[in-house]
Amino acid sequence: MNRTRLDDRLADLDTDGYLLDASQEDANQLYLSGFTGPDPFLTLYADGEVHLLVSGLEYGRATSEAAADTVERHADYDYEYGGREERNDMYAAFLRDKGVDSVSMPPRGPVGTADALRERGIDVAVDADDRLQAVRAVKTDEEIDAIREAQEANEAAMRAAEELIAGADVAGESDEAETGVLLRDGEPLTSERVTEEIEVTLLRHGCALDETIVAGGAQAADPHDRGSGPLRANEAIIVDIFPRSKATKYNADMTRTFCVGEPSKTLREWYDLTERALNAALDAVEPGATGEEVHAAACEVYEEAGEPTFRTDPDTETGFIHSTGHGIGLDVHESPRLASGGEELEPGHVITVEPGLYDPDIGGVRIEDLVVVTEDGYENLTDYPIRFAAE
Amino acid sequence: MNRTRLDDRLADLDTDGYLLDASQEDANQLYLSGFTGPDPFLTLYADGEVHLLVSGLEYGRATSEAAADTVERHADYDYEYGGREERNDMYAAFLRDKGVDSVSMPPRGPVGTADALRERGIDVAVDADDRLQAVRAVKTDEEIDAIREAQEANEAAMRAAEELIAGADVAGESDEAETGVLLRDGEPLTSERVTEEIEVTLLRHGCALDETIVAGGAQAADPHDRGSGPLRANEAIIVDIFPRSKATKYNADMTRTFCVGEPSKTLREWYDLTERALNAALDAVEPGATGEEVHAAACEVYEEAGEPTFRTDPDTETGFIHSTGHGIGLDVHESPRLASGGEELEPGHVITVEPGLYDPDIGGVRIEDLVVVTEDGYENLTDYPIRFAAE
Repeated sequence: MNRTRLDDRLADLDTDGYLLDASQEDANQLYLSGFTGPDPFLTLYADGEVHLLVSGLEYGRATSEAAADTVERHADYDYEYGGREERNDMYAAFLRDKGVDSVSMPPRGPVGTADALRERGIDVAVDADDRLQAVRAVKTDEEIDAIREAQEANEAAMRAAEELIAGADVAGESDEAETGVLLRDGEPLTSERVTEEIEVTLLRHGCALDETIVAGGAQAADPHDRGSGPLRANEAIIVDIFPRSKATKYNADMTRTFCVGEPSKTLREWYDLTERALNAALDAVEPGATGEEVHAAACEVYEEAGEPTFRTDPDTETGFIHSTGHGIGLDVHESPRLASGGEELEPGHVITVEPGLYDPDIGGVRIEDLVVVTEDGYENLTDYPIRFAAE
Repeated sequence: MNRTRLDDRLADLDTDGYLLDASQEDANQLYLSGFTGPDPFLTLYADGEVHLLVSGLEYGRATSEAAADTVERHADYDYEYGGREERNDMYAAFLRDKGVDSVSMPPRGPVGTADALRERGIDVAVDADDRLQAVRAVKTDEEIDAIREAQEANEAAMRAAEELIAGADVAGESDEAETGVLLRDGEPLTSERVTEEIEVTLLRHGCALDETIVAGGAQAADPHDRGSGPLRANEAIIVDIFPRSKATKYNADMTRTFCVGEPSKTLREWYDLTERALNAALDAVEPGATGEEVHAAACEVYEEAGEPTFRTDPDTETGFIHSTGHGIGLDVHESPRLASGGEELEPGHVITVEPGLYDPDIGGVRIEDLVVVTEDGYENLTDYPIRFAAE
């Protein structure tokens, strides 16, 4: 964690401290506390110090693992497990003990805790800007290495997926399966089968699985569809993998689109267009450029080719119907956004660049690389070929 | 979802509706909306109807998947992506459109949304009892079947873990590894290796992985330690697996403790005592009994044998230092609690029963079964032998 940046970003808040009440599921909490607590616990940042309040069960691990200046346990405030009002009393006592009469909480902090502290005379303000997000957005070298490592696992998984797809047979008229369905060992190759291969490969590389997208045909036209059922020849198959390292908790993200057989002329055009949109967006990535400008670079390629985007038609349900990318770190989606209104890029931002085109009647195509913004441009953390025909 | 129970539990709230602002990560949201949205969305329960407000990107999936009476998208409120104040205006307009001027939110609902609605004249009350938890606690037959299925995957994973441990050699003086270390194919058998085997097995059975505990020796004495490094002969190895079905999102949970070689006399006594505590607690499970009474039944076995519990010494760091169990469903830990203050058991409650003993100088022993409370007692959903010597 970059404490200078933290202090800088929190400097204009006029509260005595910054309070988190969350488990490790919350990226702000994981970042500020450095502790993987499975149940919600308190982290207070005040006067340049990080203070943790955890249950007795977590105390041992927290003292050895957390990046905190002080760690206290519930018993230090004579709290016995179970009582709700007593718990809130303990929280207030913990804050006052640190000389804190007012705190900021991020917008997704729990209203129950906020209101309970207010009832006890602690002033609670919402940090609507979620300033920790901006702190987290700029990565240290160590964080970049963690993302790089997750990306290497990701590439191994993509390789496994591509090989499974590339090595498939295509069902003909004499086969039991519907003509055109991809077959492995005589059985239809399904999204679920490819997903399982991806997930097992990630596991073997120390990554936990979250959801994975393996979607072909019309399913690929819905960017959030995870895909299911048999894959087919001549259709575009989107494979989008976003693994998380079990050791570091940092994420990677990459998408490729594959085809077995002969894609339609339109799909082939879409693929080339999307590769051009990717390159145009990448060319725009440098410190000082805004996320909006990078997004614009991708949109322009599509718009010049006559494809709809949210800029030309905010209501469109086909064409380029999402943003160009997002920051990535402890969360898969975090700051900055490569979209309309997207903020200025800074060295150390790790972002995805992922243009795509979608239409249920045609299918979907998306190509996504992972890059880090450097002093004079960007470094591409992705080392995986861009090719439509699966090999 | 049991709407009668929902209406019953929410009846005494004096607000117009119940509001959730969360993603599928939140079990209340998943339960009430029936929708696996990866980003936060709104679910309002008012006048017996479930109303969803989602982004355009999620709209298609939400209309087909969600268990909602109405699904609307941001564009229906002329909201364009990005603007924070406009987003909050949209939320307020959505509520007023449903005739709602006041809402209850669960304690872990986001304070940013609560305060923004208050600023817009909507009254927001915190449902400090988190009533949806009580609704979720009683499972339908379909939910019980989903848990049963996850538990079957769990048993396959436990089998794989036990076989790996049972089939290990023990390093002697001529081996490179430290004497007493478990070996597979000449290499030390580590917690990480067993964990990987568990995780791959779960994947093959359609379960996603969360964290898993494989902890031996002193590590097993910290109930939240996940375990790392080589496992050893003659020590107690705790294996605690809590998988989640990828299809249904329901969890299962089971713990066994294994030993290769000769456990100490104390460990052997602890194992027998813990099996007795398990049986005593199970005997106490029936509708009308409280979670506190079930917990007491386990405590009594330990206390009679002279082992410390939180009842005899709230500050103890050795002995039986956690609760006897917890409800399980869409969350691994949910209502009811089998602990001091634990609520009355009802038919349909699915709970873990998991007594254990811990001391860093001796190790840790825990045995955990998963059961459902029935009209006249309980049904054990666990079908896995209880034995200390790994087979």
